[in-house]
Amino acid sequence: MKVLTFGEMMLRLKPPAFSRILQTDTFEASYGGAEANVAVSLAIFHDDAAYLTKFPENPLGEAALSTLRRFGVDTSRVLRGGPRLGTYYFEKGTSIRPTSVVYDRAGSSIATAKRSEFDWPALLDGIDMFYFSGITPAISEELAGALEDALNYCKAHGITVVSDLNYRGKMWSPEKAQSVMGRLMPFIDICLAHDEDFEAALGIRAFDGDMSRGIEQTESFREGMMEVTKRYPNVKTVASVLRNVHSVEESEWKGILLQNGVFYESPVHQVHVMEGVAAGDAFGAGLVHSLLHQASPQEAIEFAMAASVLKLMISGDLNLVTEEEVRAAMRKGGSARLNR
Amino acid sequence: MKVLTFGEMMLRLKPPAFSRILQTDTFEASYGGAEANVAVSLAIFHDDAAYLTKFPENPLGEAALSTLRRFGVDTSRVLRGGPRLGTYYFEKGTSIRPTSVVYDRAGSSIATAKRSEFDWPALLDGIDMFYFSGITPAISEELAGALEDALNYCKAHGITVVSDLNYRGKMWSPEKAQSVMGRLMPFIDICLAHDEDFEAALGIRAFDGDMSRGIEQTESFREGMMEVTKRYPNVKTVASVLRNVHSVEESEWKGILLQNGVFYESPVHQVHVMEGVAAGDAFGAGLVHSLLHQASPQEAIEFAMAASVLKLMISGDLNLVTEEEVRAAMRKGGSARLNR
Amino acid sequence: MKVLTFGEMMLRLKPPAFSRILQTDTFEASYGGAEANVAVSLAIFHDDAAYLTKFPENPLGEAALSTLRRFGVDTSRVLRGGPRLGTYYFEKGTSIRPTSVVYDRAGSSIATAKRSEFDWPALLDGIDMFYFSGITPAISEELAGALEDALNYCKAHGITVVSDLNYRGKMWSPEKAQSVMGRLMPFIDICLAHDEDFEAALGIRAFDGDMSRGIEQTESFREGMMEVTKRYPNVKTVASVLRNVHSVEESEWKGILLQNGVFYESPVHQVHVMEGVAAGDAFGAGLVHSLLHQASPQEAIEFAMAASVLKLMISGDLNLVTEEEVRAAMRKGGSARLNR
Amino acid sequence: MKVLTFGEMMLRLKPPAFSRILQTDTFEASYGGAEANVAVSLAIFHDDAAYLTKFPENPLGEAALSTLRRFGVDTSRVLRGGPRLGTYYFEKGTSIRPTSVVYDRAGSSIATAKRSEFDWPALLDGIDMFYFSGITPAISEELAGALEDALNYCKAHGITVVSDLNYRGKMWSPEKAQSVMGRLMPFIDICLAHDEDFEAALGIRAFDGDMSRGIEQTESFREGMMEVTKRYPNVKTVASVLRNVHSVEESEWKGILLQNGVFYESPVHQVHVMEGVAAGDAFGAGLVHSLLHQASPQEAIEFAMAASVLKLMISGDLNLVTEEEVRAAMRKGGSARLNR
Amino acid sequence: MKVLTFGEMMLRLKPPAFSRILQTDTFEASYGGAEANVAVSLAIFHDDAAYLTKFPENPLGEAALSTLRRFGVDTSRVLRGGPRLGTYYFEKGTSIRPTSVVYDRAGSSIATAKRSEFDWPALLDGIDMFYFSGITPAISEELAGALEDALNYCKAHGITVVSDLNYRGKMWSPEKAQSVMGRLMPFIDICLAHDEDFEAALGIRAFDGDMSRGIEQTESFREGMMEVTKRYPNVKTVASVLRNVHSVEESEWKGILLQNGVFYESPVHQVHVMEGVAAGDAFGAGLVHSLLHQASPQEAIEFAMAASVLKLMISGDLNLVTEEEVRAAMRKGGSARLNR
Amino acid sequence: MKVLTFGEMMLRLKPPAFSRILQTDTFEASYGGAEANVAVSLAIFHDDAAYLTKFPENPLGEAALSTLRRFGVDTSRVLRGGPRLGTYYFEKGTSIRPTSVVYDRAGSSIATAKRSEFDWPALLDGIDMFYFSGITPAISEELAGALEDALNYCKAHGITVVSDLNYRGKMWSPEKAQSVMGRLMPFIDICLAHDEDFEAALGIRAFDGDMSRGIEQTESFREGMMEVTKRYPNVKTVASVLRNVHSVEESEWKGILLQNGVFYESPVHQVHVMEGVAAGDAFGAGLVHSLLHQASPQEAIEFAMAASVLKLMISGDLNLVTEEEVRAAMRKGGSARLNR
Repeated sequence: MKVLTFGEMMLRLKPPAFSRILQTDTFEASYGGAEANVAVSLAIFHDDAAYLTKFPENPLGEAALSTLRRFGVDTSRVLRGGPRLGTYYFEKGTSIRPTSVVYDRAGSSIATAKRSEFDWPALLDGIDMFYFSGITPAISEELAGALEDALNYCKAHGITVVSDLNYRGKMWSPEKAQSVMGRLMPFIDICLAHDEDFEAALGIRAFDGDMSRGIEQTESFREGMMEVTKRYPNVKTVASVLRNVHSVEESEWKGILLQNGVFYESPVHQVHVMEGVAAGDAFGAGLVHSLLHQASPQEAIEFAMAASVLKLMISGDLNLVTEEEVRAAMRKGGSARLNR
Repeated sequence: MKVLTFGEMMLRLKPPAFSRILQTDTFEASYGGAEANVAVSLAIFHDDAAYLTKFPENPLGEAALSTLRRFGVDTSRVLRGGPRLGTYYFEKGTSIRPTSVVYDRAGSSIATAKRSEFDWPALLDGIDMFYFSGITPAISEELAGALEDALNYCKAHGITVVSDLNYRGKMWSPEKAQSVMGRLMPFIDICLAHDEDFEAALGIRAFDGDMSRGIEQTESFREGMMEVTKRYPNVKTVASVLRNVHSVEESEWKGILLQNGVFYESPVHQVHVMEGVAAGDAFGAGLVHSLLHQASPQEAIEFAMAASVLKLMISGDLNLVTEEEVRAAMRKGGSARLNR
Repeated sequence: MKVLTFGEMMLRLKPPAFSRILQTDTFEASYGGAEANVAVSLAIFHDDAAYLTKFPENPLGEAALSTLRRFGVDTSRVLRGGPRLGTYYFEKGTSIRPTSVVYDRAGSSIATAKRSEFDWPALLDGIDMFYFSGITPAISEELAGALEDALNYCKAHGITVVSDLNYRGKMWSPEKAQSVMGRLMPFIDICLAHDEDFEAALGIRAFDGDMSRGIEQTESFREGMMEVTKRYPNVKTVASVLRNVHSVEESEWKGILLQNGVFYESPVHQVHVMEGVAAGDAFGAGLVHSLLHQASPQEAIEFAMAASVLKLMISGDLNLVTEEEVRAAMRKGGSARLNR
Repeated sequence: MKVLTFGEMMLRLKPPAFSRILQTDTFEASYGGAEANVAVSLAIFHDDAAYLTKFPENPLGEAALSTLRRFGVDTSRVLRGGPRLGTYYFEKGTSIRPTSVVYDRAGSSIATAKRSEFDWPALLDGIDMFYFSGITPAISEELAGALEDALNYCKAHGITVVSDLNYRGKMWSPEKAQSVMGRLMPFIDICLAHDEDFEAALGIRAFDGDMSRGIEQTESFREGMMEVTKRYPNVKTVASVLRNVHSVEESEWKGILLQNGVFYESPVHQVHVMEGVAAGDAFGAGLVHSLLHQASPQEAIEFAMAASVLKLMISGDLNLVTEEEVRAAMRKGGSARLNR
Repeated sequence: MKVLTFGEMMLRLKPPAFSRILQTDTFEASYGGAEANVAVSLAIFHDDAAYLTKFPENPLGEAALSTLRRFGVDTSRVLRGGPRLGTYYFEKGTSIRPTSVVYDRAGSSIATAKRSEFDWPALLDGIDMFYFSGITPAISEELAGALEDALNYCKAHGITVVSDLNYRGKMWSPEKAQSVMGRLMPFIDICLAHDEDFEAALGIRAFDGDMSRGIEQTESFREGMMEVTKRYPNVKTVASVLRNVHSVEESEWKGILLQNGVFYESPVHQVHVMEGVAAGDAFGAGLVHSLLHQASPQEAIEFAMAASVLKLMISGDLNLVTEEEVRAAMRKGGSARLNR
Repeated sequence: MKVLTFGEMMLRLKPPAFSRILQTDTFEASYGGAEANVAVSLAIFHDDAAYLTKFPENPLGEAALSTLRRFGVDTSRVLRGGPRLGTYYFEKGTSIRPTSVVYDRAGSSIATAKRSEFDWPALLDGIDMFYFSGITPAISEELAGALEDALNYCKAHGITVVSDLNYRGKMWSPEKAQSVMGRLMPFIDICLAHDEDFEAALGIRAFDGDMSRGIEQTESFREGMMEVTKRYPNVKTVASVLRNVHSVEESEWKGILLQNGVFYESPVHQVHVMEGVAAGDAFGAGLVHSLLHQASPQEAIEFAMAASVLKLMISGDLNLVTEEEVRAAMRKGGSARLNR
């Protein structure tokens, strides 16, 4: 079973510790992006994962590529060329100072790629599952078109399609998102949606926007998830992460999975967040991994949720934890003791 | 409306992360000082702020000066010369290990400056508000004398005077402080006093010294604040920060403002402290900024308090937050979500 | 009163901040080991402490040696030679991601030292107290034998023997530990045992293994401690640390001391852990220091416990805190205020 | 006498020491750009220097702005807005491994600025000298147009115009450069041209392109300089730097100045290059400073050349040396002794 | 054409800049080893390179493995298991202070691997060229035996064998080396030998040991190379690097290739060494790459030599330079100009 | 044979790499001072060395003290108390940009110590050799007086006195130096004098001040050395370092020793300087070590000179090289080969 994920991978530049961009004279450099994060996590779980994007022919493109290879992702499908690697600046907040992101991704090699550059029969050859997030079609019309081509190919060739709605308000409006996602949803088998994704990307209200009490709105989320399967009967599985966020560091996390009309829930994890980014991608990888290995829905949502919260304790966009470490986190009190 | 702040700016040397001075072989260098911090914060709020001190003619003096300029402070009044830049070592504590400061400020250029070096008519030309903290007169008799000259000039020329009592037990005794501050208080229009400042600097008991339950002593603080305005009717505004400090990181903060006999209070902020220094200066800058812009007393105390707690999440003495960020922190749940 | 501690000191390599070994390209280097940590802490408390081990004749051996000397430990008894310095990799966890240790200590100079290399009459000349942890006999049969020789000499010459059971599951099995410790216990005057040490090293059940509720099992621990003194009447003092560990950072700590059939308890310390390593050694040093200075049992357990929790807020294996700092931490609210 | 320089200032990201972009996970961040470098150097020389560009309204724009302010440059004319701050990656070479630059400057705020955004009567109000390099018109047609507007205004209002031809083959072709510079040259009073600038920007052959023997081609350079004044009689001063470059670190440098038909030469400096970037800008600033202070042509070329070679020993794009330090470098043996 | 290289890859720990092991508290970590370096360099040249070793099942083994993958090396043949990853400490010297290496490689996973663990028919399946250095058989008798098995298989299946003699005096004596290499030489097609390798590994005197005048002994080296082909007629190609080393940084380098009785020489490169390690491996990779692509002997020795000296300007054991960069270095004056 | 050295040890703060104080936000911290450097070097040579100074009772004093202990210096005579630790800022130059030092040593604990604090009979008990440099009497009149007391005691008790004239123009004038040193010289047995020391400290002209041609003035230096022994017949040995300094990095070094009217010279070392500080102290330690071990005058000057130039390749003030390393550097070509 081979998975292909498709999207944009960027250079991430982060001031050390809690410094602000305005005051730093050093940036920590790493590379990440929603679908790349999923591919890396799968590869670390020893799944066969490939990634598709377009990287420039320069040392930054090489560095991004080598990051993927380093963790075992198949990069043989990656396109090369174009003007630049997208970049983003990540300023970690703390307590009531919010984490802040400055995007500098316009005009990147993947953002300026043409629909016609993607030879889907070749790119999807040997692929069993195709994964993308709502960020990819938000990048450009051409990429949205390319995705449509890919999904048509997937449908015709029995390739499972997974999508994390992943709405980004800095990239497109709800109207635009709903218009584009409306065209893509009929091809999706497994749909991940968190927080405001339901409303922004699909126009389905499942959450009132108060991040401090997401878990209290479990019933509303369930209704939203059910509504997704009603509107798009092709969607066989819907999964959501619910959160109560008290400060940058303190929060509770819970996962819900809907399959065949039945809901499965993970326990609530009370976590101290070290770096609050890419937890949704870690959730997606955990879910895909579970599905690839025929886990039960209950085990799948528990594994995905444990993978997701572990990501909150890892530096960088990539979820550098093994399957064994996720399983340990699923067991109560796994953190309590230093094993030596 | 132009503000001049007057005091000492020092080189601050801090071991990285939680290392102790004894074990480190690297120091992070930054520059700060109570009144300089106020000036920088005001400049970042886009107020017209100037700073007065005396810096040595060497690269350390240049570096301190350039720090002020970097954030937009008018440094044209700064005196140059003298033997050295004051220095302090800042060792960050955690949990029950207290933060520790080693002063090495004796004999600095400002500490050895003479009263006669300050040509107040020129220095205060074009100034609408004059700000100093109780640290400045504690530095030397000459500076205390210079301050008296300045305050006389302010009174004669309608320049508003703001003072943060800011008592420092390592610099002078309560007796000495009360004697000097007794001479200066009749010139002060706006008085900031926190924790033990009332008793040490003015001999007014408002707080029993138990830092773990400052907020519980609100009534006592109110009485102390009222007493200030009784003793010194020229003081039209008194503002105080009350704290419950549970550990180096965990604490609650609340601000109170007294104006025309009416008390205004901020909400209580429950915060996780990243670096517990210069929050009082951030409070002072927030208050001055509000007053410069004719904010209501209620808005003023809320803005000042939000600015103060945000400083606890910033590295270095300088409160590198914008007015927009302070306003966001004033709104509930501002930190809950990563905006992207 | 001079103390000699005996064991292995290793190079510790730690990725910066919360990075994983897999992703780092820098390691912070320090040197530590249970008994070396005790010796350093004693030396910082101004006690006369010597350390015994065997270091290789290379720059790493020099660096370990100079670390001991730096803090005032007498290193004149240290043997030199052998193949290598033991090493361990320390990956700090956070929240529910556990801290992880990779040992690379096999084949070190001390691990390959022969029993006959230790000339105890010379090594113990002038020594009043001898300290070792259960790690030392676990290193090799030869070292276990050397320890037997040392303890016989101590008994014959009235040297007090202190031992921290310090069971390490990665080094030996409970069966092996019990067999070896069974031979050594009859020589021990003061015995330290925490968590699972009772059961693993002595076969005495005092704790059910649930680290989240150690303090709740106080009664069971007391019974275990009493049992130690029953089995080994030579043991005049038993001391234990009990913990409720909620996450990598959040825990409660309490110390119990049994002397002459009477139990003495420290208050419970609620702590935020910055680095959860070597707290047991800090406890041992605090206890030994108290005993050397004829502190009362109550003061001894309080001092040892405060020293132990302070270590949780210090980088590296060594407890770089002074006696004054420990005493401040013993007083309630000692951390609340920045003294300046 | 006030100088305005006009161009693009970028974020510079450099791997530490001699690491390659491919292998680093940290970048040192600084901010620079040809004309910004000139403005900063002038400000450090205590000249009145202002800079004109357009910065985005984000923390990177703030950081670039604050860099200028830090060293005393007047930033009141800087425009704000637009999409992004231009960026470049600087990989330092050594010996026969060349230094390598990756530009990521397309689509920056200044590159997308419109000609009509520049209100020259306001921007040039109070300005006595206007400085730009050939990079500015290479950025966009709009900027080339804006420059034409500026130069027309300068001519009409007696503002001296200085231009460093500064040809960049990665930004435009010789044909394009010659076409645009052909329109601008008639407005230029002082022209700086190095290496291949003559041929690429003006079509005048002065150098055969062999960087290892530039100084040997002094006569050819002289002819080229003379030719410039023949074609453009408005150009009253031409200055050039000639180099023999033996490796990344080892080279010889010499400056030539042509004024009123007379050539003035600096001594040849034999230098070990620490960081080979922005030496031309340092030369430009040294020349402008000399001219502002009515230095003789001989002193001017010597000062400019000494300033230029000192830049080769400074980290970052900015020439952080004082006038006194340049004068010391002009004296033989200035480096020989540690003064203490 | 696929190449398999076989040997040990170690963790390399280096104090930053020019610090000594004794004084540092940070180590820069990278991973390298003679044959791994060759495989990585080939992969960066876009050759199909695989590497064979045995790594422990721990995060250090993972990190070494991921380093290989990162640069495109096929790691599918790597064995896993065993006790530890070999380590070495690298202390960079300068001027007359020599670079110093402390090995801590005893007892590593590969050093304790058994001859029988290597299933050569499987490991060499699909391989066209097999590469090892003299370090591999020096590690253990078992590995020397495994190599004999491999070479027999190569001979039987027409796989070209390349060996860099790479004598290491800290690992074995000349007597032992000559005895083992005597058994292996009859299988070798291409032999690399530098400096004292001839004498120590083969007992052929080609060099008097004076590193300051290796190039002056060209004739003697030629005789030695010729002698190799006489003794072992199977050796069709011999290549050597000759050096005049004046200090840690200053040296001259020249390559000689003997093929079919004809000598081919590279130009002499005068270089400033940034890090003097692994240049021989870079030479080997350059030579293999040339041979794989049917370069002429003259081009092969020039390419190999340029690759080798470029390595002296790269941090870490791995030669992170592209084929294009090597070709640029082969052209005179390639380093003279910053291309922008 | 036990040596006591007496002087000031300071905190040294250095910007990383080649950064300037003005631009850095990190300082590398180390501790050094002429006589402390000598003591540390002797201890590393396994001599019995003690150091005398006065350190403040704060963490910086502790850190300085622990630096001495770390390398084996006996610190039992060190006085504690006083206001502060002297500090100096060290900005490393390169090529023609000179290294620059900013002293911040006024008012230190040792500088404010009283003559009466030094109980010489106790401090010099068990001491065979007493070492000080000309810096010590330049610090204060009190210290100059204390030195007189010490020298009188030495003379009365047969303790050999060694002095490095070490003139510092930033600390006192030639007149003052000559006056004080004139009183001290009659007690000195072994006198070290370099560069301008002869003239500034003794009024004896031996050098014309041109640092680029010190070695050319060997004859003049010899005459100066001879003159010292004429004026002060008690001086039995004079030693000098002569240098040709071409740039911050490039220089030649030669040592001369005069004993019983005979001159002994070291070879000329051509060196590339990594950090040009404290080479004179390394020379002093090398000489003292040689004398303690009855080396011949020729061997003594060669050893001292090799120790001195090795210091130029070490970070920090302390000469962290072993006797074996010095001996290797004395042999030609010691640096040519990496031993592995």
